[in-house]
This record gives sequence, structure tokens and C-alpha cells, in this order.
Amino acid sequence: MYVTGKNVAKEVLKSNIKIYKALILNDFNDKNIIFDLQKRNIEIKRLSKFELSKVDDSNNQGIILDIENFKYSDIDELLVNEKPFIVILDHLEDPHNFGAIIRTCETAGVDGIIITKDRSVEVNGTVVKTSAGAVTNMKICSVTNLNNTIEYLKKKGLWIIGTDMENSTNYNNLDYNMPLALVIGSEGFGMSRLVKESCDFIINIPMKGKINSLNASVAAGIVIYKIIEKRL
Amino acid sequence: MYVTGKNVAKEVLKSNIKIYKALILNDFNDKNIIFDLQKRNIEIKRLSKFELSKVDDSNNQGIILDIENFKYSDIDELLVNEKPFIVILDHLEDPHNFGAIIRTCETAGVDGIIITKDRSVEVNGTVVKTSAGAVTNMKICSVTNLNNTIEYLKKKGLWIIGTDMENSTNYNNLDYNMPLALVIGSEGFGMSRLVKESCDFIINIPMKGKINSLNASVAAGIVIYKIIEKRL
Repeated sequence: MYVTGKNVAKEVLKSNIKIYKALILNDFNDKNIIFDLQKRNIEIKRLSKFELSKVDDSNNQGIILDIENFKYSDIDELLVNEKPFIVILDHLEDPHNFGAIIRTCETAGVDGIIITKDRSVEVNGTVVKTSAGAVTNMKICSVTNLNNTIEYLKKKGLWIIGTDMENSTNYNNLDYNMPLALVIGSEGFGMSRLVKESCDFIINIPMKGKINSLNASVAAGIVIYKIIEKRL
Repeated sequence: MYVTGKNVAKEVLKSNIKIYKALILNDFNDKNIIFDLQKRNIEIKRLSKFELSKVDDSNNQGIILDIENFKYSDIDELLVNEKPFIVILDHLEDPHNFGAIIRTCETAGVDGIIITKDRSVEVNGTVVKTSAGAVTNMKICSVTNLNNTIEYLKKKGLWIIGTDMENSTNYNNLDYNMPLALVIGSEGFGMSRLVKESCDFIINIPMKGKINSLNASVAAGIVIYKIIEKRL
């Protein structure tokens, strides 16, 4: 897949991700990036602005890397720590939200992210870019049946914490000092019914305005950092 | 300006914003929206999918409203409460981040947002949409010289709190129970030098990962909700 932009290129070059080829603008002159590409013996192809935009017409900053597809993890690879903190995305749809959530999870030290295979985000070039490259340091597991996965996590000793405005507890009032999986619902519909029913706790972020809903990645950020704070 | 989508249309119809015209898809059949449009005596024009996409090619869900431009507030309109909480965006650039931050401010009960006139976001259709209509309930002031504005806020008794990773305090450790303005820096460069120098306090969100930076709207959300929590 293609990923674009200087910051993303730098993160990919720092990681173990396989890079097949680098497409750069004729007058691209970021010496550090070119040095790192040459050190790793990666084929560099110089193109005109027009040719580059035909490959990817987003704001590519003069560099596009052709990299191997993202390697998803098995569920057990997310559970290696003694007191895991997993984030589950229940049919999230927007790649920008996904990228921002990966970035939050990486900075917060979350152990891994679970997504669903159908009607949902996947790791593509947009996600790599909006995650600012954080995806290269994050374990992500893609599952077919989220309800089965949640049952498995429960058997492994994790508590399942959902997020919903109704019939729920203020997110400030819970003790998060336990192995846990936090479920973030989709942008339009929140958590699916079965997932909601399988939650051990459901929390909300109290709101004062008229709109009564936050952007999904902002809501995830607020709750994830609250959990981190209470687990210290 | 044009705004698109059903949820945004509903918010605009609830507000006092002037609507010049509604462009809807031939078979658009959301009865509540059509009822509200007719009740307010707004001209409705039915168009084909192709004609509608020529006006706005984003995901418009069959409805585009032509509304009056956003009315910015004067600085003093943001300072009517006894212990104001203002958010300052120091040359934020991405309209999606701006929209998400407006949404957060609205749900958190922030008194108003200050933006800069040059090299910065402004309230356009994308912002109205990504704010999920929250912008209709938010006072926004656009200023030419942010440093002068900050001096004015200080004279009015507000404390200025900046956000930066360096030379700063953990955001958990501050008492926010005072009149204050929180400064969020731009996506790429953070706060400008002069703005940073004029801050009374600078706070950071502690991070564990390798990437060491959050999406601007996520960072804003985490800090804004921490301030709200501590002001209770």
C-alpha cells in the first residue's frame, strides 16, 4: 500500500515495515529521509509533480512510499501484559477517527486495538498518515465475530467497559485498576446491542451542551487518558 | 455558505441562523426536516443527484442548505460569565480539528473560542458539518493580533494556560478553579513563541509511546475535560 508525507515516511523508516519503493519529487531534498532510504538500500524513483499526484493526489509533501500491507496481530499477542488495557472499536467507520485513536492508544501505552472485519475501518494509507505513523508501534487485531472475541477476553480475566450516554456511570467514578477492554461505538450508532449487553460496566462522559455527543476519537481520548490516570 | 447533511440541517433548523434556500434530492423524504423547512417558509428546490453533487460533492445525504455566513462574536461577549473558560486556537489549520474542538467546547460548556484571522481556520461548511452543528451554539471571536488579545484577557483577570511538551507541568497537577483561557497550538508547530511567553502556566499530557504527540482535537478534548472536572 502507499503511504504519503514526510513525518509518516520518517516513522516507517524507523520501523521494521518492509518498503518496496520510494517515489519522490524531482527536487525533493530532505537529506535525512534520502540518507535513510539509501542506507536501507531502497529503490528511489524521482517523478514530476504531475506523475506523483497520479499515484496519490493527497498532500504527499513530495514523498510516497510503497510499503507492505499492515500485519494484523492475533488476539493473544495483545494479552501478553499482566494487566492488559485493550481498546475495541465496534464498527468504527471513519479512517481519520481510526488514525487519531491509534495515535492516542500509542501515546497512552494501550496494549492493542481490536477492530471488526465487516463494515468497519481497516489499516490503509489514510490511517497510517492520520495516525502520524503510530500504527507502526501498535498491535491491531481484526476479528470476524466481536461477541465471541468479547467472551474470550472475559474468560481471560478482562473486564469489558462500554461507552454510552444511557443507563451508565460517570466515567470519573470507576476504578480502572484491572485488566480491561474499553469499547468505543461507531460514529453514528454507538455500540451494537449484543456488545452493549455483554459489557460489565457502561460509562458516560457528562455533557452540558445541546449537542450531547463528542467526536468518536475525542471521546476515546478523554476516556483512555482517564483510565491511564486511574491505573497509575 | 453551504452546509450539508441531515444532522447539520436539523441543528441549523433549531437555531436562529438565517436559511436562504434548501436544495434537496428529488426523492428526499425526511418528513421532519421538510416540515421544519416549510414551517419556516424556506424555499425548497428539488434537484437530481447529479445537480446536487455539482453544488457540493461531499456526502450530502440529499440535503444542502444555503445559510448566512457565520456571525463572529466580539471578545467581550465571551466574557459575560463570572469565571470564564475560553479556548484559544493559536493558528490551528485543519477544519476537521476545528469542528471537533467546537463540538467538545459545546458539550463541555466552554464560554467561547478565539481564533486568529491569518493562516488559520475559519468557520466554513466543513467546520459546521464536523462540529455536528455545535457551532450554532458557540461564540467564536476572530482576532487580528492574538498577543494583544491575550494581554486584554489578562487585564480582565483571566489566567493564560498553554499546552506544550517542554518546560511544563503535568495537566493533572494544576488547579483550574479560576477565570482562564486555554491555548491550543497549531497541528505542526504548537504555540507561537510570543504566545508561549505570555502564558501564566504551561501544561502537558504525559505520554508513554514513541510518537509523543496527540491529534490536536484529541489533546484539546483531554485537557478541556480535565479542566471541567477540576472546576466542579
